[in-house]
Amino acid sequence: MEYRKIKDEEDQIEDGVVGDAVTSRGVSPSTVTSFPTGSVDRLRWKRKMVVTIALTILTSSQAILIVWSKRAGKYEYSVTTANFMVETLKCALSLAALTRIWKNEGVTEDNRLSTTFDEVKVYPIPAALYLVKNLLQYYIFAYVNAPGYQILKNLNIISTGVLYRIILKRKLSEIQWAGFVLLCAGCTTAQLNPTSDHVLETPLEGWMMAIVMALLSGFAGVYTEAIIKKHPSRNINVQNFWLYVFGMIFNALAIVTQDFDAVVNKGFFYGYSLITILMILNHALSGIAVSMVMKYADNIVKVYSTSVAMLLTAVVSVFLFDFHLSLAFFLGSTVVSVSVYLHSAGKMQR
Amino acid sequence: MEYRKIKDEEDQIEDGVVGDAVTSRGVSPSTVTSFPTGSVDRLRWKRKMVVTIALTILTSSQAILIVWSKRAGKYEYSVTTANFMVETLKCALSLAALTRIWKNEGVTEDNRLSTTFDEVKVYPIPAALYLVKNLLQYYIFAYVNAPGYQILKNLNIISTGVLYRIILKRKLSEIQWAGFVLLCAGCTTAQLNPTSDHVLETPLEGWMMAIVMALLSGFAGVYTEAIIKKHPSRNINVQNFWLYVFGMIFNALAIVTQDFDAVVNKGFFYGYSLITILMILNHALSGIAVSMVMKYADNIVKVYSTSVAMLLTAVVSVFLFDFHLSLAFFLGSTVVSVSVYLHSAGKMQR
Repeated sequence: MEYRKIKDEEDQIEDGVVGDAVTSRGVSPSTVTSFPTGSVDRLRWKRKMVVTIALTILTSSQAILIVWSKRAGKYEYSVTTANFMVETLKCALSLAALTRIWKNEGVTEDNRLSTTFDEVKVYPIPAALYLVKNLLQYYIFAYVNAPGYQILKNLNIISTGVLYRIILKRKLSEIQWAGFVLLCAGCTTAQLNPTSDHVLETPLEGWMMAIVMALLSGFAGVYTEAIIKKHPSRNINVQNFWLYVFGMIFNALAIVTQDFDAVVNKGFFYGYSLITILMILNHALSGIAVSMVMKYADNIVKVYSTSVAMLLTAVVSVFLFDFHLSLAFFLGSTVVSVSVYLHSAGKMQR
Repeated sequence: MEYRKIKDEEDQIEDGVVGDAVTSRGVSPSTVTSFPTGSVDRLRWKRKMVVTIALTILTSSQAILIVWSKRAGKYEYSVTTANFMVETLKCALSLAALTRIWKNEGVTEDNRLSTTFDEVKVYPIPAALYLVKNLLQYYIFAYVNAPGYQILKNLNIISTGVLYRIILKRKLSEIQWAGFVLLCAGCTTAQLNPTSDHVLETPLEGWMMAIVMALLSGFAGVYTEAIIKKHPSRNINVQNFWLYVFGMIFNALAIVTQDFDAVVNKGFFYGYSLITILMILNHALSGIAVSMVMKYADNIVKVYSTSVAMLLTAVVSVFLFDFHLSLAFFLGSTVVSVSVYLHSAGKMQR
């Protein structure tokens, strides 16, 4: 796979084998000799931290907005038009960022918007995978209820890890795998409630669908990372622009097939409130944060980031909504915290 | 602390620095050169495994006997006389083992029963600590109910780890500590039930007592290990004999203070059934297994062994008593399994 080759080269740069990248960024040759990629490493680490923290905060506030909107009892807008607006906003934000870059740096091979069929042909795939997953979502509720589905969704963690290993051919150490299994177990534990045991009564068909959905979702995430990292020097805003254009197209199809009558009769923005607009804004920003994490970190960081966000949401909800934390939540959070530690401890010994 | 010095010497032997121990066990000098302590290490490892597996099986069957006896509704015998019988049986078994050893090897400095005040003066301490802990047990039920107490008992795991580190001055690697925190979280998760959240309402006094009890129990375990390992060459059956003699004395005191009237009126063995006898036999054998684990392994192995036994019990109960496993049990078992893995993986990188 071509991606693998590029990854190897990237690793070489990260390991300090290739010196060009350093000097071209203005580090003096003497610094290069003693501390090969010190400042570049630090910059990379900083960028990785910023996008990860941004994703964590955005995902937490996303869940809080959902709770808030449910409390307000306002959920009468069309979900498909909202999703379309999210994609449109992401597209517009990417274009705005690009305009600024073109003004400062001029149009280059890496930041020009025009593309080849060969580059763009893979961009619809993640959006198509998510569409299939969302369609399946309607059918799985024939086998499990909504809280049960929330629990089964934690299978995404395992599927992402496995596909990350298989498709991106990146290795996790044994300790990191242990951490990943714990992340899945810890998140599920934190979500346990007195009715959770019903999920064990899920028939085989339900399990199969849950596993297929987890694989689709994991594959979409890992494939997006592969697409974005295939051209490491390509500007992320261009890559995002093309990803989101196909997102707009697929969501437009969803409006036509699912909500056409409602939109024609009640109008496109029917039922939108302040909170709907905030949710759209938040979804757009978290979507961009996910892309950034894919570019500058990876799917594993994304999974950790959104899992920790889930725990943060619960803690914040205690203060905002007088939410009660269960013993299971404390136990799950402990397990997730240890898992985060193991992920970084496992990296060092690799 | 004198124990520390002996421990260092033991470590040296284990690391193959001291050669005497090997040749005296009949390994030829040539083997010693190439593979310093290979066969001794293997023997030690085998002995450690045998006692650990024995403890796990005995602890599992202990819990199953308790469930069985509760199902049979027979709990009318005096618990203090049963405890006294357990100590007496352990004493008798140690003496029987010693008689065989004396016949085969003759009486030596290490296996003679006679002792000095200096050696024996510390032996009553563990029994006294357990007595204080058992007395506190009556008071803690003013603050928590029985299932809540079962959950708080998992604090023993953490207290044993901390005291093991402080008193025995043995180091655990960071990964092993992570494993230990997970063992505690995993065991608690596996025991979760719809009423578990009540434990979070425990008042501060209840938490304090639970922590004191965990410390007493952890201290008794760690102190027993220190006593037994202080004289590594002393025969374990002699050490057990003296430990159990004090166990008999303390339990006799308990009969006199708590059950004197019942025993005088109804007789010492009142209410004993086949299952009572099986439970006494099982408790005696598991007590001896605990001592063996302290001698040939350590408190950490003991904690892992009894925790895994708890999970095994639940699985066996599915077949024996048509017991239903909860989702929390599966999640807790997963976390405990990863914890066991981390304990051994963490050892290698030390």
